[in-house]
Amino acid sequence: MKDHNCALPDALDTVRAIAEGRLTAEAATRVRLERCAEREDEIGAWVHLDAAGALATARALDAGPMRGPLHGVALGVKDIFAVSDLPWRSGSPIWRDRVAGFDAGAVALARQAGAVILGKTETTEFAGYKPSRTRNPVVPGATPGGSSSGSAAAVAAGMVPLALGTQTSGSIIRPAAFCGVVGFKPSFDLIETGGVTVFARSFDTVGVFARSVPDAALGVEALTGLELQPVTPALSTLSLFLSPVWDHATPAMQTAWAAFEDDLARQAPLAGVPFSDALVAAMAEIPDLHARVMAIEASEALSHEMAIAPDLLSQGLRDQILQGAAQTAEMRHADRQRMIDLRGRAMNETRPGDIWLTPATTGVAPAFDSGTGDPIFNRLWSLLGFPCCTVPILRDAAGAPMGVQIVGRQGDDRAVLSVAHWLMERFQPA
Amino acid sequence: MKDHNCALPDALDTVRAIAEGRLTAEAATRVRLERCAEREDEIGAWVHLDAAGALATARALDAGPMRGPLHGVALGVKDIFAVSDLPWRSGSPIWRDRVAGFDAGAVALARQAGAVILGKTETTEFAGYKPSRTRNPVVPGATPGGSSSGSAAAVAAGMVPLALGTQTSGSIIRPAAFCGVVGFKPSFDLIETGGVTVFARSFDTVGVFARSVPDAALGVEALTGLELQPVTPALSTLSLFLSPVWDHATPAMQTAWAAFEDDLARQAPLAGVPFSDALVAAMAEIPDLHARVMAIEASEALSHEMAIAPDLLSQGLRDQILQGAAQTAEMRHADRQRMIDLRGRAMNETRPGDIWLTPATTGVAPAFDSGTGDPIFNRLWSLLGFPCCTVPILRDAAGAPMGVQIVGRQGDDRAVLSVAHWLMERFQPA
Repeated sequence: MKDHNCALPDALDTVRAIAEGRLTAEAATRVRLERCAEREDEIGAWVHLDAAGALATARALDAGPMRGPLHGVALGVKDIFAVSDLPWRSGSPIWRDRVAGFDAGAVALARQAGAVILGKTETTEFAGYKPSRTRNPVVPGATPGGSSSGSAAAVAAGMVPLALGTQTSGSIIRPAAFCGVVGFKPSFDLIETGGVTVFARSFDTVGVFARSVPDAALGVEALTGLELQPVTPALSTLSLFLSPVWDHATPAMQTAWAAFEDDLARQAPLAGVPFSDALVAAMAEIPDLHARVMAIEASEALSHEMAIAPDLLSQGLRDQILQGAAQTAEMRHADRQRMIDLRGRAMNETRPGDIWLTPATTGVAPAFDSGTGDPIFNRLWSLLGFPCCTVPILRDAAGAPMGVQIVGRQGDDRAVLSVAHWLMERFQPA
Repeated sequence: MKDHNCALPDALDTVRAIAEGRLTAEAATRVRLERCAEREDEIGAWVHLDAAGALATARALDAGPMRGPLHGVALGVKDIFAVSDLPWRSGSPIWRDRVAGFDAGAVALARQAGAVILGKTETTEFAGYKPSRTRNPVVPGATPGGSSSGSAAAVAAGMVPLALGTQTSGSIIRPAAFCGVVGFKPSFDLIETGGVTVFARSFDTVGVFARSVPDAALGVEALTGLELQPVTPALSTLSLFLSPVWDHATPAMQTAWAAFEDDLARQAPLAGVPFSDALVAAMAEIPDLHARVMAIEASEALSHEMAIAPDLLSQGLRDQILQGAAQTAEMRHADRQRMIDLRGRAMNETRPGDIWLTPATTGVAPAFDSGTGDPIFNRLWSLLGFPCCTVPILRDAAGAPMGVQIVGRQGDDRAVLSVAHWLMERFQPA
């Protein structure tokens, strides 16, 4: 496994160094552009790298006072976010020539906080399942996962310390785990989604990739005005949750997870309250329910593209849209009500501060040609709107990374990040 | 009060007449364009009337088989929705020259269902509180209400039988009530919102204006694939709910409401279960909570506009944005949690099918120069995500319309429409 990143400061270090006059935004930007130059040919993380724009932004920042919490931090932006004057292709040939005339809300907030937008990162087609060209920077021959493929890869390769992504089924947690970085999907709708191409409105959630949990927290703080830096976690609220989809875990994950459980038991008493048997039984239907609602909502969100250029959609996406469009009125109504009911139950039958630890993915990143990997360990939390963070503290025998996923109730974002940070500090593999 | 509409077929009649060969889409469109020509100078409902495009669409429909449930129905689209090749100004000089390069999801679905898009209707600034130029077609000198001012006025004046709008605080129910038409805000997120300018992501809801409840149901059916046509309602689930904001009702509303209560008591036993006292007490905080979350989310959604052209925002909107941006981290977190908790409680402490009848507004449309009216009777349902429909069955002494608002739990859209239709049939004022 490759890791060339030790020498680069993380986002918090960068801001601190600039504030203390030890670094300029321009120098911080140049280091990242050099890393891009070294590794981009091999990885293909970027739809468009805006070196000139980034350097101009950095120089403007250097000429003024500290602008905000991301002052001078190089940022990768998934290509489903609109960024003024940059391409906005959303991973589709339909929008090959589109250039955005405005910033998505989250992008404008990042800019306002002092971020230096390095460019647009590769996404699968409309953030669905058709892979982009991006390669996994740390597992040769493997997929980086999707849909936020370029953002995960760019952070893993040290091209940026922070990148924006989105998750609808498993599009943040899965690529972060496959690339060995921290991925954080906040509570549903915690971050502004205006100006981000929609796939499924009930699930689409903006989140971040970083090399550390405090950096991930910093990114979301800058976009929300919340206080999210990790604090000492209440370990009494932790429980393990293998989830109703545990039988999808690969042998590599099962082995690594068993070792993690043993290690964890030595470090902390797991005194949290598990989900009730009744709730777990109800959750078992979530993967299928999530897939159905996602298909219905995608058929609505992409109705314009389906009308003007069906032949430019991949066969897989077209099938997904047609499957969604074909749902009966009864099924549409019943599925939507079931989703609302399950969200309500998951909040009612748990307590504030409860945290569950569960695998981030079924295993390590599969081969590049196999697709972007299975989101089945992510659909539950995407449907429930629960915040989750993956930390790269598991490895298979060959050293390929896997993630432990920390999940909390809606609104318990800081508790999730606090446990994630605690785990990163204690379980970072050699 | 003026009403020139008796001769025009409603949306359902139009589709039926075309299907039976008694009418062409082109003729149906021409009638509406004539009505626009007669009344637009006085009302100012349209940002852009696309007569040529509408007639071309109508002729194309006439040349083929029945396309879908809105075949040949003239549709007004609020100017915060993107419509291909038409202006997309969102009520702001910042976007004066913007032309949309795509259809919003809801617009593409309407087109797919056979709708004839007549043009873009006036909206307040970004669907907030700064009035558009539109006049109330039925109450001389009065505001049509906002923010979906043009859509409500266009339907009230018979320019279209159906129009799309959105509600964030009271932007569908209020203008519909002030203009004497049916307004339906479905359950939160029931209709696709992609391609619609965002104001506050937790509340923005797409809905419709029509002259009858079955037409409103038809419009939402076409955009969702649900079955929503009114059926015989279960009157045993009805209860009256004056709401914690009843003291904001004007004398005109109080008088009309008292008479309505008496009439209703003679027609139906109100056997529904009222909200519990505890829930009503909790609801009392919703108007302020809704206003705070709306300001915070608007400051995020409009961060790009605030960055590039603050001087082109109205003072009122700028103040709202600054007030949102100034909220502390603690307040942001607490308000968001409170919103989630109240939504959960409102579902948990009520039963499927429960319906509440409550005023649509504080009273009749106020003077044009006074703003767009008070949304206080709408904030509760916008925050809870509950579907609501206003029917124009109340009048003040001078004959100005007011609405009875029918509210149900999330997902009970059809039950709401069924009661609305039942009320329209029994209480239509002379």
